[in-house]
Amino acid sequence: MIAWKNMDTLTAYQELQNVERLDLRTAMSGENGAERVKKYSVPMGEGLAFNYGARAVDDKILEALAKLAEEAQLTEKYAALYNGEVINTGEKRRVLHHLTRGQLGETVVADGVDKRAFYVEQQEKIAKFVQKVHAGEITNAAGEKFTTVVQIGIGGSDLGPRAIYLALENWAKANNTLKMKAEFISNVDPDDAAGVLSEVDVAHALFVLVSKSGTTLETLTNESFVKDALEKAGLDPARHMVAVTSETSPLAQNAGYLAAFFMDDYIGGRYSSTSAVGGAVLSLAFGAEVFAQFLSGAAEADALAKNPDLKGNAAMLDALIGVYERNVLGYPSTAVLPYAQALSRFPAHLQQLDMESNGKSVNRFGEAVDYVTGPVIYGEPGTNGQHSFYQLLHQGTDIVPLQFMGFRNSQMGSDVVIQGSTSQQKLCANVAAQIIAFACGKDDEDRNKYFAGGRPSSIIIGDQLTPKALGAILAHFENKVMFQGFVWNLNSFDQEGVQLGKVLAKRVLAHETDGALKVYSDLLNI
Amino acid sequence: MIAWKNMDTLTAYQELQNVERLDLRTAMSGENGAERVKKYSVPMGEGLAFNYGARAVDDKILEALAKLAEEAQLTEKYAALYNGEVINTGEKRRVLHHLTRGQLGETVVADGVDKRAFYVEQQEKIAKFVQKVHAGEITNAAGEKFTTVVQIGIGGSDLGPRAIYLALENWAKANNTLKMKAEFISNVDPDDAAGVLSEVDVAHALFVLVSKSGTTLETLTNESFVKDALEKAGLDPARHMVAVTSETSPLAQNAGYLAAFFMDDYIGGRYSSTSAVGGAVLSLAFGAEVFAQFLSGAAEADALAKNPDLKGNAAMLDALIGVYERNVLGYPSTAVLPYAQALSRFPAHLQQLDMESNGKSVNRFGEAVDYVTGPVIYGEPGTNGQHSFYQLLHQGTDIVPLQFMGFRNSQMGSDVVIQGSTSQQKLCANVAAQIIAFACGKDDEDRNKYFAGGRPSSIIIGDQLTPKALGAILAHFENKVMFQGFVWNLNSFDQEGVQLGKVLAKRVLAHETDGALKVYSDLLNI
Repeated sequence: MIAWKNMDTLTAYQELQNVERLDLRTAMSGENGAERVKKYSVPMGEGLAFNYGARAVDDKILEALAKLAEEAQLTEKYAALYNGEVINTGEKRRVLHHLTRGQLGETVVADGVDKRAFYVEQQEKIAKFVQKVHAGEITNAAGEKFTTVVQIGIGGSDLGPRAIYLALENWAKANNTLKMKAEFISNVDPDDAAGVLSEVDVAHALFVLVSKSGTTLETLTNESFVKDALEKAGLDPARHMVAVTSETSPLAQNAGYLAAFFMDDYIGGRYSSTSAVGGAVLSLAFGAEVFAQFLSGAAEADALAKNPDLKGNAAMLDALIGVYERNVLGYPSTAVLPYAQALSRFPAHLQQLDMESNGKSVNRFGEAVDYVTGPVIYGEPGTNGQHSFYQLLHQGTDIVPLQFMGFRNSQMGSDVVIQGSTSQQKLCANVAAQIIAFACGKDDEDRNKYFAGGRPSSIIIGDQLTPKALGAILAHFENKVMFQGFVWNLNSFDQEGVQLGKVLAKRVLAHETDGALKVYSDLLNI
Repeated sequence: MIAWKNMDTLTAYQELQNVERLDLRTAMSGENGAERVKKYSVPMGEGLAFNYGARAVDDKILEALAKLAEEAQLTEKYAALYNGEVINTGEKRRVLHHLTRGQLGETVVADGVDKRAFYVEQQEKIAKFVQKVHAGEITNAAGEKFTTVVQIGIGGSDLGPRAIYLALENWAKANNTLKMKAEFISNVDPDDAAGVLSEVDVAHALFVLVSKSGTTLETLTNESFVKDALEKAGLDPARHMVAVTSETSPLAQNAGYLAAFFMDDYIGGRYSSTSAVGGAVLSLAFGAEVFAQFLSGAAEADALAKNPDLKGNAAMLDALIGVYERNVLGYPSTAVLPYAQALSRFPAHLQQLDMESNGKSVNRFGEAVDYVTGPVIYGEPGTNGQHSFYQLLHQGTDIVPLQFMGFRNSQMGSDVVIQGSTSQQKLCANVAAQIIAFACGKDDEDRNKYFAGGRPSSIIIGDQLTPKALGAILAHFENKVMFQGFVWNLNSFDQEGVQLGKVLAKRVLAHETDGALKVYSDLLNI
């Protein structure tokens, strides 16, 4: 029997606060530090390891966290989720994104359909369509192949697929599997669509319109923008567009699209990269086999997250250490720092994933909670960030926990030796160095050159950023966020906080405003 | 006589803490709210206004902030800075980036040179070179025109110029002044250079190598990478490269470059966009006249920042309200939210500008301070952010002050009417709506749909994001950060916090490691 309880009512949470804190600087020094780094490592699937040697925990704290995981019934709640319970209490929906990449538990039947079978069916439909596009069997009206795919979507229909495309674009080039370039139009700012269209050969572009409800204003507006451009170029929009939507949306049975691929209400936007939302654009760009590899990596990480033993469960560990940092140590933000240029937009995806899921003040029953929840998430790739905001991370007045990622090999394999090392070695040397600099600091009589240390981090280490590895990393963070939501007793799967702005924006456009809103509207000439 | 004092020793700061706090939700409601928005607006130059109606201040708090500005001698310190005093105490350097765009005070002579004249001379040298490139007088060895400019630099040599290029690319297209496309290589990750080069026609590419010292490891490594690629393509690197560096650097008098343009030690990387660091690449991309417009906008904002009357000085107001939010209200981060897709990377530039300048724990004399300093800065363009992390901003447990920007007109002028409004109107309606939603919130019996409000924001409003407007916005934030550094008694112009990581990375590459650093190095196969 699952009990959904606020974190501050759990005995283990009370106990956690009384466990002696770790002096990270001391713990990470000398041979003791070496032992920690060797010991505090757990597999994440696909040859990846989650190394938490430099997080501010020790065996005693981990023991307390394990008790918290047990009392909060994290494993049971995860099972309830993937077995189809209505975990999204606010919207009264199941939460089934895991089924897009594997069958973790029981068969889930919803609306009379085996949902795993449904998601697989959509993947197969996409794969067949994509194959025809790549083979030149589905072409533009002139019988010419499509060369570019342009995703039109916003939020979860944009950030995840875009981050994944960028993460694998160079890998695909190096592996001769870049079938079509992908571009993305998201913002209602007309310069977004106009700018992208000015760079794209529209006659050979296939547009993927993504909107679950078929009513997202930004996306429908950008669709019209694109249709206008196609018509002005003498092209038939219906020959250049596919839809990704729910079966009940107005886009589903619509002659305006070459094809429609379906997702459903059980997959939230920010968790939809492994559904048709990511599947269509990524399969068109890289081939369906590559997308399948990506899914298999995610499936492997999902399976590892079932492990009830905290020390063998990377996602759960990452989640609980994060809760400890947020609620016991009081750190308000977390930085995501991948040492891979390919992951340049991955922090932006995690920002949505985390902040939209757990940036909440009420529990899953709509009652205010008395503790802080989701932190602010931000980040940029290393080494770029080192030359930017790391100054504050090292010597600022606040401590920011860090989530590093690093890979032994580059994606493209092209490199150069300068001062006795390759660029890839320099990249890896920098991330290793940063972990120690943050943890151990440096004494100096000149306080301006003094580093206090004690700044915690973890690192995900892999061989190479492949589709499989990326899938495992994505699922790791999805599951981390899910576990944190369970600990905080939140509903991590709705987003009521986005509604008020929409309502007020409609009022502005209808000129039904007064007070300050009217003044701002006037200032902006609306 | 200027007195450099810690903030907590100032009488005005003590008084500020005792001033009654504002109930923003009430203050922004009804006609009172309308009056605030009309009243709390100040010109920023170039037709821009800084509107702080929705920040958590009122006349009493503003009066206390004005006293703080006076006691902290902000106007006097700004004058000392632009008149050439050694404000960068850590590195014992003057701070002269304002002179790249205008003469604000006395003639500054350093190293026997009138520095304003020196910066102007570099701009003119760049303009002449650029004109020859655009006219086809300087070409590749085959006598063909260069079509692309590729900046090689990191940190301030990358983030600012890149953000500005992206901000003006569509404007330049619409105004027929996009002379060359620009690309950027920054990361030591070899996939960065390899990825960019795989997209660029190197035979028609001109590379701008930017390193003040001529010793930045990432940049020199990427230069080698590019030279390799040029040589492999049968091209002479010396015909494809220019350098931006200091006169004393090894790159300065070097036959390996078509030309060298100079900056100096008085301009920090993050303040260098208006120097040759931004000037070369942006003039090549858009023409020197466009870059000159950008500088004139910055100069106008710089002049406005001299105003000793707080209520007429947008940069000083923004700075002091920020200090109030950080030190009195205790908010740890600030989000930058431009409603313009063109500003997609501007938050990343401000992240460096702010966090690298003021993310410090010691004052300008190297003594630890007892108050928090620079906040975490992050952001994404709207409306995209609304579909991402705004959930936390609206309903999370922490309050995040917001810095909006909005423009009445788009850059490209291409638009579409859907449901009775243009995309541009929808964009503007959304930012107006968000300000009110954050400030006023919404009651609801369902706590899940309840918005507490009281979340402060300001907005910079302009007609259009032109080069001049962008220059004024850039200078606004530079001056804001400078004023905050003055209040906190920091040296905002050094970055000792980036040194330790460099030292340790060298040790890793030399295999001179032990303890935890050795284990990480082994795990990463270095």
